[in-house]
Amino acid sequence: MSARTLNRDLPKNVGRVATVAGWVEVRRDHGKLIFLDIRDRSGIVQVVVTPKTKEVLKIAATVRPQWVVELEGEVKERPADMKTQKPLGDIELVVQRISILAQADELPFDLSTELNLDTYLDHLPLTLRTKRARDIFTLQETIIEGFREALRAQEFREFQAPTLVGGDAEGGAAAFKVGYYYDKHAYLATSPQLYKQIMVGVYERVFSTPKVFRGEKHATTRHLSEYSSMDFEMGFINDHLDVMRVVEHAMRHIVGQVGKIHGDLLRRFSVEMPAMASSMPSLKLREAQKILGVGETPDLEPEHEREICAWARNEKSSDFLFITHYPVKKRPFYTYEDEADPGYTKSFDLLFRGLEITTGGQRIHEYKLLVERIREWNLDPEQFSYYLQAFKYGMPPHGGSATGLERLTARMLGLANIKEATLFPRDLNRIDTQLSK
Amino acid sequence: MSARTLNRDLPKNVGRVATVAGWVEVRRDHGKLIFLDIRDRSGIVQVVVTPKTKEVLKIAATVRPQWVVELEGEVKERPADMKTQKPLGDIELVVQRISILAQADELPFDLSTELNLDTYLDHLPLTLRTKRARDIFTLQETIIEGFREALRAQEFREFQAPTLVGGDAEGGAAAFKVGYYYDKHAYLATSPQLYKQIMVGVYERVFSTPKVFRGEKHATTRHLSEYSSMDFEMGFINDHLDVMRVVEHAMRHIVGQVGKIHGDLLRRFSVEMPAMASSMPSLKLREAQKILGVGETPDLEPEHEREICAWARNEKSSDFLFITHYPVKKRPFYTYEDEADPGYTKSFDLLFRGLEITTGGQRIHEYKLLVERIREWNLDPEQFSYYLQAFKYGMPPHGGSATGLERLTARMLGLANIKEATLFPRDLNRIDTQLSK
Repeated sequence: MSARTLNRDLPKNVGRVATVAGWVEVRRDHGKLIFLDIRDRSGIVQVVVTPKTKEVLKIAATVRPQWVVELEGEVKERPADMKTQKPLGDIELVVQRISILAQADELPFDLSTELNLDTYLDHLPLTLRTKRARDIFTLQETIIEGFREALRAQEFREFQAPTLVGGDAEGGAAAFKVGYYYDKHAYLATSPQLYKQIMVGVYERVFSTPKVFRGEKHATTRHLSEYSSMDFEMGFINDHLDVMRVVEHAMRHIVGQVGKIHGDLLRRFSVEMPAMASSMPSLKLREAQKILGVGETPDLEPEHEREICAWARNEKSSDFLFITHYPVKKRPFYTYEDEADPGYTKSFDLLFRGLEITTGGQRIHEYKLLVERIREWNLDPEQFSYYLQAFKYGMPPHGGSATGLERLTARMLGLANIKEATLFPRDLNRIDTQLSK
Repeated sequence: MSARTLNRDLPKNVGRVATVAGWVEVRRDHGKLIFLDIRDRSGIVQVVVTPKTKEVLKIAATVRPQWVVELEGEVKERPADMKTQKPLGDIELVVQRISILAQADELPFDLSTELNLDTYLDHLPLTLRTKRARDIFTLQETIIEGFREALRAQEFREFQAPTLVGGDAEGGAAAFKVGYYYDKHAYLATSPQLYKQIMVGVYERVFSTPKVFRGEKHATTRHLSEYSSMDFEMGFINDHLDVMRVVEHAMRHIVGQVGKIHGDLLRRFSVEMPAMASSMPSLKLREAQKILGVGETPDLEPEHEREICAWARNEKSSDFLFITHYPVKKRPFYTYEDEADPGYTKSFDLLFRGLEITTGGQRIHEYKLLVERIREWNLDPEQFSYYLQAFKYGMPPHGGSATGLERLTARMLGLANIKEATLFPRDLNRIDTQLSK
């Protein structure tokens, strides 16, 4: 390949000869003139092939969408009546030489049409190349890096949480079973919970962004078998409110970064920036249920999550809403009970635009109480002996939270199905291809 | 808890009353005076309890290593003859109030003694609290973040690679089998290879730092069942040399960051900064074998990796050495054969201080050739149909590499066993606890 100029740098090269390389997005064949829209990682530029270069015109007539080409030509300002408001709409490349780097089969469908979800997922190696898909995962990268930045700025240390675990520890979520060596078995982590607590004993404040795995037989628009969890855990807290402050700080930083970098992107999805009140509103679960006029069930139903978020949006001008104080029996064994509100926990969920995206709380740090709770939950302390060492040897009051990367991405962009916010979604019926029935 | 001052901020507070909180590292009981070394995330400070506060002295006499305490007292400059060169060695806190946040059992061993590896690993929730362990994973965080920084600076986009995959695609490495829904099965990814190639079609340049899994029955000082892979892949390259340049750039950035931040840390491990020549030396495999005076086997044995690295250190003043042009049959099916050196590939390994830490190369981008190779490798193209879509619909010349985070960490610090460079190592015999035989 010749020295390549990225499309975005062409305006600086008007009047000069440059070489670009990329994918053919569109070919417009006017017989004597052929126009190609060429996509590279920096943008899309129009190139024009004229009858002056007959051989080039002949080749250009054969190229089709998604062919990969290298083009050399003169960068020119477009005639005034041909200029557009699009990026790089002022210029074009008048081609002198073309090389085909790779051909492509005829596309199975027009990439600009709206596809049904299964067709879209069946062809991700192709459909991820659309602007819409590239936008989604560009935003997702900003979210996960924004999370890391916010935590690092508060002296949280990143650690690599293990994926293979010895048992389905928490007992609640269904864990996938792995054939380990010989006749042994392992499980896939449903959360880095126990490890991040251990790490509080090491660094006080830690975060991790591992893949976690849930084997429940859900077939909804908000569940995945494999997803990215943005987790943190911190020591020396007073209570769950300290944890909520870190969650709020991280969300503000993420939303701030999205606003700073992705204004245009949000407009392409016709969504607003998330509404942020000066401080995120918070309701006890029972308060929320009272507002909704529903009974005191141990959790909110999906439609109640949507309704209480609508309330927060209207009454508190916030797209985020904390719900706190879930009943003891509804939360995991390690959740701290509120001395001031017995039967209820120092726990919280964060709802965002109608969906739970974060769950967290203060954890039990007293060894004896923790062992007691494990027994009360009908779990076996022996199964937790490794984890329990952290408590046996001194743990401070601590808490933390976990936020689903894909859920946050999906709600930020108003995507109807979380699978659209996951590069290669795994679910009941699909690992890349649809699983045979 | 009262408003807490971190240990590192105490020197600014001499003459004032401050509250610190942390773990008791050491208690020195002189009867009338008790000294405690208190560790928090920012450092270790000495506190002193005097007979002036009898009740406090009584409590202080009961505390033991790893108890978690909160202490209020006056920050004082130490008497001149009591000052030490250690961080915070100029000051101490004269305690007026003590609260026990958590007790700890008597430790099973003295944390300052050198433990055998199995004892160390059996007690990670405790042993990770040692300075040595905290140093290792502090450095590891710098390495992985340094990798991300270097790649981002060159316009690589981060993506989340999947862990659950449909088949043991490459056929080479042994993949762990996962019980998926109903009677279906999945596997754990041995590498993000196929997905990062797909992503070249989307963003041109991508990176990911996923966990990957290898089920070979290795019991060595350099293999793990689960490790962190620092992967990238890039399009529009001329050949593998473009890929090697990005690897070299990333390593220089990582080493630069380590040097900038962790000079003291390296000294604690008695290791030098990695030696970096002005450009990293590179040998064809056959050239290396000639230098070593060994036959032309398809790969280097571990002792040959060590010997050729000693050669590079002596002759080229470099702790890094590229080995290129492995035989076609020794590399995966997607590896690009060198037209100028038939039978050998545009592939490379990067060795660092005697160990292979990185592997990479140019990949085949032509659809037909790739399908041919899959057949030649006795694999089934149908099994690769999802991946092959990327090539059917136009892929540019591309390549990439993968670096083992734990191996790089281990060699940077001169650790004898890679398990020490892994927070919670999984191997043939261990997932946290030792597996029953």
